Amino acid sequence: MKLSIERAALLKAVSQAQSVVERRNTIPILANVLIEAEGNDVMFRATDLDIEVVDKAPAMVERAGATTVSAVTLHEIVRKLPDGAMVTLSDDGTAGRLMVQAGRSNFNLATLPKEDFPVMASSEYSSEFTAPAPVLRRLFDKSKFAISTEETRYYLNGVYMHVADGDEGRALRCVATDGHRLARIDAPLPEGAEAMPGVIVPRKTVGELRKLLDDDEMMITVSVSETKVRFATPQITLTSKVIDGTFPDYSRVIPQNNTRRLEVDAAEFAKAVDRVATVSSERSRAVKLSLDEDRLVLSVNAPDSGAAEEELAVAYADERLEIGFNAKYLLEIASQVDRENAVFLFNSSGDPTLMREGNDLSAVYVVMPMRV
Amino acid sequence: MKLSIERAALLKAVSQAQSVVERRNTIPILANVLIEAEGNDVMFRATDLDIEVVDKAPAMVERAGATTVSAVTLHEIVRKLPDGAMVTLSDDGTAGRLMVQAGRSNFNLATLPKEDFPVMASSEYSSEFTAPAPVLRRLFDKSKFAISTEETRYYLNGVYMHVADGDEGRALRCVATDGHRLARIDAPLPEGAEAMPGVIVPRKTVGELRKLLDDDEMMITVSVSETKVRFATPQITLTSKVIDGTFPDYSRVIPQNNTRRLEVDAAEFAKAVDRVATVSSERSRAVKLSLDEDRLVLSVNAPDSGAAEEELAVAYADERLEIGFNAKYLLEIASQVDRENAVFLFNSSGDPTLMREGNDLSAVYVVMPMRV
Repeated sequence: MKLSIERAALLKAVSQAQSVVERRNTIPILANVLIEAEGNDVMFRATDLDIEVVDKAPAMVERAGATTVSAVTLHEIVRKLPDGAMVTLSDDGTAGRLMVQAGRSNFNLATLPKEDFPVMASSEYSSEFTAPAPVLRRLFDKSKFAISTEETRYYLNGVYMHVADGDEGRALRCVATDGHRLARIDAPLPEGAEAMPGVIVPRKTVGELRKLLDDDEMMITVSVSETKVRFATPQITLTSKVIDGTFPDYSRVIPQNNTRRLEVDAAEFAKAVDRVATVSSERSRAVKLSLDEDRLVLSVNAPDSGAAEEELAVAYADERLEIGFNAKYLLEIASQVDRENAVFLFNSSGDPTLMREGNDLSAVYVVMPMRV
Repeated sequence: MKLSIERAALLKAVSQAQSVVERRNTIPILANVLIEAEGNDVMFRATDLDIEVVDKAPAMVERAGATTVSAVTLHEIVRKLPDGAMVTLSDDGTAGRLMVQAGRSNFNLATLPKEDFPVMASSEYSSEFTAPAPVLRRLFDKSKFAISTEETRYYLNGVYMHVADGDEGRALRCVATDGHRLARIDAPLPEGAEAMPGVIVPRKTVGELRKLLDDDEMMITVSVSETKVRFATPQITLTSKVIDGTFPDYSRVIPQNNTRRLEVDAAEFAKAVDRVATVSSERSRAVKLSLDEDRLVLSVNAPDSGAAEEELAVAYADERLEIGFNAKYLLEIASQVDRENAVFLFNSSGDPTLMREGNDLSAVYVVMPMRV
C-alpha cells in the first residue's frame, strides 16, 4: 500500500474513526484503525464490536493495499503535522510497519495484520430513508439528555427511534427517559420510513452520530433492521447494533389532563433556577416552585448552608400550587427551549409535569416532581 | 453589617479570596471568607493558614460590621447574578445569617462567628521594594515550571527568590528546580531589595500571586522577612509563609564550560519534539538529538509502538553529538523562549545542558540528559 493525502482530509477521516475506538482494550486490534487504499480513495475503519465507522477520503493511491495501526497514535501524529502538509502512508508488508511521511517528519508504526480486523457483518436492512441533517440533529439533541445511565435498565440506555402517531399525522419519533424525566421529539415521517421497526439507538452511537450532523445541507441515509441501524453520508458510514430490549410504553407516562398552565421565559427561568440551587447541598438539589396569580417564587431551603428565593413575573391564572423538582432536571429541560417561552402544565404536586415549547407539540418533556 | 456593592467589583474580590480556600477542610471556618465593612470599603479575607489574601473593594457601607460565610457559595451566587446588578449584603447577628439580595433574588447564608476566623499574625518585614507587575510576572512565569512536586524535597516545592550577582550587576533572581531541570531568571535589582533575605515562595503562592500580575501598569509592593513574603497592590494583599528550608546551592549545577553551541528556531524545535514524541510510550518519553554540521535529527524509538524521526536545519558547527532528553522537559524549556532562537550549549552526552534565549543571560535553563 502507498498513498498520498492532504493533511486536513486525513485528519478529518482519522478523527471520526479514533473516537469510536475505546481507550482500554483487551483485544489489541480493537485499538487499531483498518486502512484500505484502492482506486482514488482510502477508507479508515474502526470498531468497538458494537459500533463500526468507515470514513472515506480522496487520496492519490500509488499502490493499493490494506493494513492496521493504532488509531490514537495515527490521529495524534496527523493532528500535530503542519496545516497544508501532504502526507504519504506506505506499508512494508514484510517488516509489519507503516511509514507515515510528511515534509521532514518520518514515522514508522507497528501494524497488526488486516486479516485480524473484525469487520462488522453486513446486514439486510428492512427500511431505508433519507433525512436532512438538521432534522436528525433536532430529534437526537433534544432527547439525549434524558437517556438513563443505569446499566441495569439497559433498555433505557439509548434513544428509542420509531414511527408513531404524532400531533400532525405519522411521525418519526425519538424518545428517551430515565424514569425521572422523559423527552419525546417528533419530526415529519420521511418517505420510506413507514414500516421501520422501532430501535433503541445506544448512547455512544448517538454521540458518534452527532458528528455526522453538523452540516446543514447534508442528507443522511438511515437504514434500519431489527438488530442494526446505519447512518450514512457520502463520506462516512456509521453502523451500530441496537439495544436488544423492549422500550417501555412511555405513552402512559405522558400526562393528558394537566390543566394548570404556567408560561415563563425559558432563559430567565433557567438562570433563576441555577441561582437558587447554589445554596443547596449536592445531593438533594430540590427547588420549590410556588405559583400564584402571575407570580412564581423559586425557593431552596438547605438547613446547613442557607436558603434562597427568587421571584419571577409569569403568566399563571390557576389556583395556588406548590411543587418541588430536582434542580438539575429543571435546568436541563428549560435549556431545550430554543425560541419560545416554556409552557409547564401541572396537575397536583405529586403528579408528573409536562413541559413544551410554546404551543409546539412536536417536542414534549415530562418531569417527575419531588417532595419538598 | 449592611452594604451595597456593584456585582462586578464583588465578583472580582470574592474570586481571588475563594481561590485561596482549600476545597477540603477539616476546620469549617477555613471554608469561609471574612467580610469586614467599614468606611467606604469592604474587605474579603480568606486563608488556608499558610496563605492569606485580603481583597478590598469600594462599597456603600450603611452599617459597619463583620461576619464570615462560605467562600465557595458566595462566589457561586455572585457569579450567577446578572451583570450590572447591585448587590446588598446584610447580616442578622442574632440569627447568624447573611442576607444576599440582588433584584428579585434573595439568599440567606449560614455564618460562623468572625471571632473564630484565623487572621494571620502581622509581621515585621526586613525589606520592602516595589516592582512593576510585568517584571515579577516574567520572574515567576519563566521559573515555575521547574518547581518540584516531590513532597519529600519540600525545599524544592517553590521558587527561590533572592538577591544575586547577575550578568549585569546585582539582580533580583528567581530559581526553581526539581533535580532534572532548572530555571534561573534575573531582573534588575529594585531599590530597597539589596538586603532582602532569600525566600522560597511556595507553589500555591506563586499561583495566587499570578492573579495580581495581569495588569501591565500595576506596581507591586513586595515585603520580605525570614518567614513571610507579602505582595500587595492597592486592592489586594497576598501574604504567605515561605518554605522553612535551605535552597540548595544551584550555581554548581549550571555548566560553565559547555562549548558545543546549537541555535534553533524555538517554535519549530518544540513542534518537532512534540511530533516525534507521539510514538513513544507514556513512561520513557526519551527523544534523541543527533547533531551534525548545521543539521539536527530528532528521533524516538519505542520498540512496541514504532519509531519517529525529524530533521531540522539548525546552526551547529561543532563535532558530531548524540544526546537524549525527556521530551516533556525539552518541550517545557523550549516554550519559555519568547522572541529569539533557542541556544543550547552542550558538553558531552552525559553532562547537563544549558539553554538560553539568544544571547540573553537573564534567563538560563539547565536540563539533565537521559540515556537513549
